[in-house]
Amino acid sequence: MTRIVRSLAELRDLTRDWRAAGATIGVVPTMGALHDGHLSLVRAAQAECDRVIVTLFVNPRQFNNAEDFAKYPRTEDADAAILSPLGADVLFVPDAAEVYPPGHATTISVSGVSEPLEGAHRPGHFDGVATVVALLFNMTQADRAYFGEKDWQQLQVVRRMVADLHLPIQIVPCPAIRAADGLALSSRNQRLSPDARARAALLPAVLLDTAARIEAGGTISPTLAGATVKLVEAGLSPVEYLELRDAESLGEAQPGRPARLLVAAWLDGVRLIDNVAVTLPAQG
Amino acid sequence: MTRIVRSLAELRDLTRDWRAAGATIGVVPTMGALHDGHLSLVRAAQAECDRVIVTLFVNPRQFNNAEDFAKYPRTEDADAAILSPLGADVLFVPDAAEVYPPGHATTISVSGVSEPLEGAHRPGHFDGVATVVALLFNMTQADRAYFGEKDWQQLQVVRRMVADLHLPIQIVPCPAIRAADGLALSSRNQRLSPDARARAALLPAVLLDTAARIEAGGTISPTLAGATVKLVEAGLSPVEYLELRDAESLGEAQPGRPARLLVAAWLDGVRLIDNVAVTLPAQG
Repeated sequence: MTRIVRSLAELRDLTRDWRAAGATIGVVPTMGALHDGHLSLVRAAQAECDRVIVTLFVNPRQFNNAEDFAKYPRTEDADAAILSPLGADVLFVPDAAEVYPPGHATTISVSGVSEPLEGAHRPGHFDGVATVVALLFNMTQADRAYFGEKDWQQLQVVRRMVADLHLPIQIVPCPAIRAADGLALSSRNQRLSPDARARAALLPAVLLDTAARIEAGGTISPTLAGATVKLVEAGLSPVEYLELRDAESLGEAQPGRPARLLVAAWLDGVRLIDNVAVTLPAQG
Repeated sequence: MTRIVRSLAELRDLTRDWRAAGATIGVVPTMGALHDGHLSLVRAAQAECDRVIVTLFVNPRQFNNAEDFAKYPRTEDADAAILSPLGADVLFVPDAAEVYPPGHATTISVSGVSEPLEGAHRPGHFDGVATVVALLFNMTQADRAYFGEKDWQQLQVVRRMVADLHLPIQIVPCPAIRAADGLALSSRNQRLSPDARARAALLPAVLLDTAARIEAGGTISPTLAGATVKLVEAGLSPVEYLELRDAESLGEAQPGRPARLLVAAWLDGVRLIDNVAVTLPAQG
């Protein structure tokens, strides 16, 4: 039975008892609208931790676009129902005043890794993410936190912040979960029309094809340009970015280091993001 | 016997054992050059906590002025000697690479309370303070942290940050410790010539006199202007600010709320700060 907790005081009572009993705590931060991607994070947490807290908070501060915030799906009852059979201990659903006390004035910023790609296209987004994630870590007192690799840059921003602030928590990355046609699961996919949903699988297909071409030694700029044209011609437009980056710093990709190919593109009024690993050929 | 610890790994081993044994941990963050003000914080921590960690770290990121950073006194051996009879458990002396891991990119900013006064005159200072204080809290895993009221605005910035980030630590303010002539103890006082040191007591004297005049109903602006002239004429110049502020928000002072009179002034090439409480007359 998953207990729904709304107040920090109640959560603190629980976590104090758990910690006193020597239990390890895992947290899965979510904005709700739970799908199999989230559930895979919950299962990973349950496999490794004695207690699991799923947080559900649609964080206003990480939306740079008021319409996106307003349209973000809110389905708490369905979320609780979908979570229940898994046996997570707590669904923590704080309201904004519980997360941000009156007069809240503190922001956590991570320079470098948060600046390109999503950071460039969604001003303030990663300040909002870093801040709320640190708050949720402190509120839940978790030992481990589970994040999906679908939001690759977010994962690297959170890792950097945790290392930099010496937060006593381990970040556990989990692979993106994909539909049968390859589309990475996302709460925003619900907003695609059936026709657009059918075409959306082109995004991961192009990513994988582009990664394969680069791994086979294809010249990077023309390969990315060709892939962008393919996406735009199929109606995935605009392509906000399609870039090969260092997997950890999100700076320039370096031969001999893990790289990542990342994309953001619009389809049917919905902004989709995805990414895949790229193993760069050793420098000739 | 106070144990000197330089590595975070060693500190974490200690604090893990302490916490497992149910001990409460107090931390006294310092930049060294310890004087009776710091020792009063250590004694307060020892009275309330099972274990006490004194941190000694001259944080480069909170100095907006390279010369001030270079000139800041560094007296680790003397600090260890002065601390030893008190029986603090640990003197934590990390180097900069231990505090800021390679590639460190994370900053904590507190808007509002950090902006006027010190914030206006020392750009970036409170970002540096907030960030390093959060790092030290996370590194030490302390339950309580002790700060002197001499750095009044710093105390309010730290309190705001702790509330905003839900840091699981209690901030304990302790009164400024003053020399017999009233000058608040500060590591920077060492840099005053004997003549300047003798004149420095005018600073708290003028503060107390000004507070008394305001409490007696004196009009604020002319009272502050008169006090500024008095300081400047005695060689305490420039006066960077002498202001009456709300004691908590550092915004405009409000009748019926605790207020604080705060000053920063230069003497003999040394920047001195001080503050006193003011009880505003009820609004007429």
